[in-house]
Amino acid sequence: MKVWLNGRIEAAATARIDPADRGLTLGDGLYETFPARGGKPEFLAEHLDRLAEGCHLLRLPFPQADIARAVADLLAANDLADAAVRLTLTRGPGPRGLPLPPDPRPTLLIAASPLAPSPKPARVLIARSTRRNEHSPLARCKTINALDSLLARLEAGDAGADDAVLLNTAGNVAEGTSSNLFVVLDGVAVTPPVADGALPGVRRAKLLAEGAKERTLTVADLKRAARAFLTTSLSVREVAGFVGV
Amino acid sequence: MKVWLNGRIEAAATARIDPADRGLTLGDGLYETFPARGGKPEFLAEHLDRLAEGCHLLRLPFPQADIARAVADLLAANDLADAAVRLTLTRGPGPRGLPLPPDPRPTLLIAASPLAPSPKPARVLIARSTRRNEHSPLARCKTINALDSLLARLEAGDAGADDAVLLNTAGNVAEGTSSNLFVVLDGVAVTPPVADGALPGVRRAKLLAEGAKERTLTVADLKRAARAFLTTSLSVREVAGFVGV
Repeated sequence: MKVWLNGRIEAAATARIDPADRGLTLGDGLYETFPARGGKPEFLAEHLDRLAEGCHLLRLPFPQADIARAVADLLAANDLADAAVRLTLTRGPGPRGLPLPPDPRPTLLIAASPLAPSPKPARVLIARSTRRNEHSPLARCKTINALDSLLARLEAGDAGADDAVLLNTAGNVAEGTSSNLFVVLDGVAVTPPVADGALPGVRRAKLLAEGAKERTLTVADLKRAARAFLTTSLSVREVAGFVGV
Repeated sequence: MKVWLNGRIEAAATARIDPADRGLTLGDGLYETFPARGGKPEFLAEHLDRLAEGCHLLRLPFPQADIARAVADLLAANDLADAAVRLTLTRGPGPRGLPLPPDPRPTLLIAASPLAPSPKPARVLIARSTRRNEHSPLARCKTINALDSLLARLEAGDAGADDAVLLNTAGNVAEGTSSNLFVVLDGVAVTPPVADGALPGVRRAKLLAEGAKERTLTVADLKRAARAFLTTSLSVREVAGFVGV
């Protein structure tokens, strides 16, 4: 497998990240995941728009590279037509501590893997081990600070569930561990607003444009929902049932 | 400069982190920072205790390496007697996504840098850009998910302050961006409890053992404090004044 790293296509087994990279030491970075089909990335403009908003918040320079071209080159190098593409942008290496390096050399990494088959319906746990912080502007960006999501996912595994939904600090529903949640209530598909800690997902925006509604959701709403779905740019996964409601 | 990486001392300029390392892709890791003097780490047992608690929460295997020996070897290789030592532990490489790799190969990285001189008194901003999530058990661990602290530090820089204090989601004081906060009120040194989002700092524990008290602190408390200090294992920094109170 090959990766695209700072403008070069390299073998993943030997490509080198600097041990002083602030992505590794401080989680100082962002990522995006999107599908490619027939060698071409889908929803790329929307993902790059969100990346740009994250860069603005974190004061990271937006990449100058031609991302569409980089993805196409990477897919060709890996002999993949259809793929899940992950782009990771970090601030690059820096000395110890929080202050920004004076002369940042950000790291841009693109990796591709075969598209997974459509996921089967998920049993979804309402996570109790942690909460999503809707008071942080980071909740609106796709950062590489993923540990709250990981804790919820571990809790789901313990409960025999396939995934989890995170509540926010007010106790309302925020999102899945790496997806947005939509529930069908009274015949309308509804999803938590960004202000409640939902990541502004690319597929979420498309569903809202098609008539879905934003609304604060409680755990009781999940219990009475006729149907529910976890959405990402890669998949729409039906919820078979909620656990721990 | 040399680093200690997975049991080997290597030149920092060529030491390699795998691009699939979950520290880089998901912030899936922990760190500790402590001083060494005369070639020997200080407070090491306390830092490794906290690391062990973080490993338990995140289900990371605790390192088998002899850390004291590794630090001594690294300092000798760098010709440093006194140093700031940073240990970073990540889950190591894994495929895309949150599920744990079936056969984890954690990354253990130790880096040393010269001890900085004692910091001058700090003008400290009460950060408004984000909040620390006291509802997450991650607030009690030193994780590499540092972006909320970075946002507060950037805000401090904008305001001409040297550092910032983060409030929790309830609006009470949590801690500094990479330090604990102590304020002197009515002749007693007090610091926010861990339940309010304070990291259980090693120097903080020592000061509590010496008579300091835990108490929920409000912004008004900061305003009326006679003195205040930001504490880490490396330094105790006097607060020259609070900004934005």
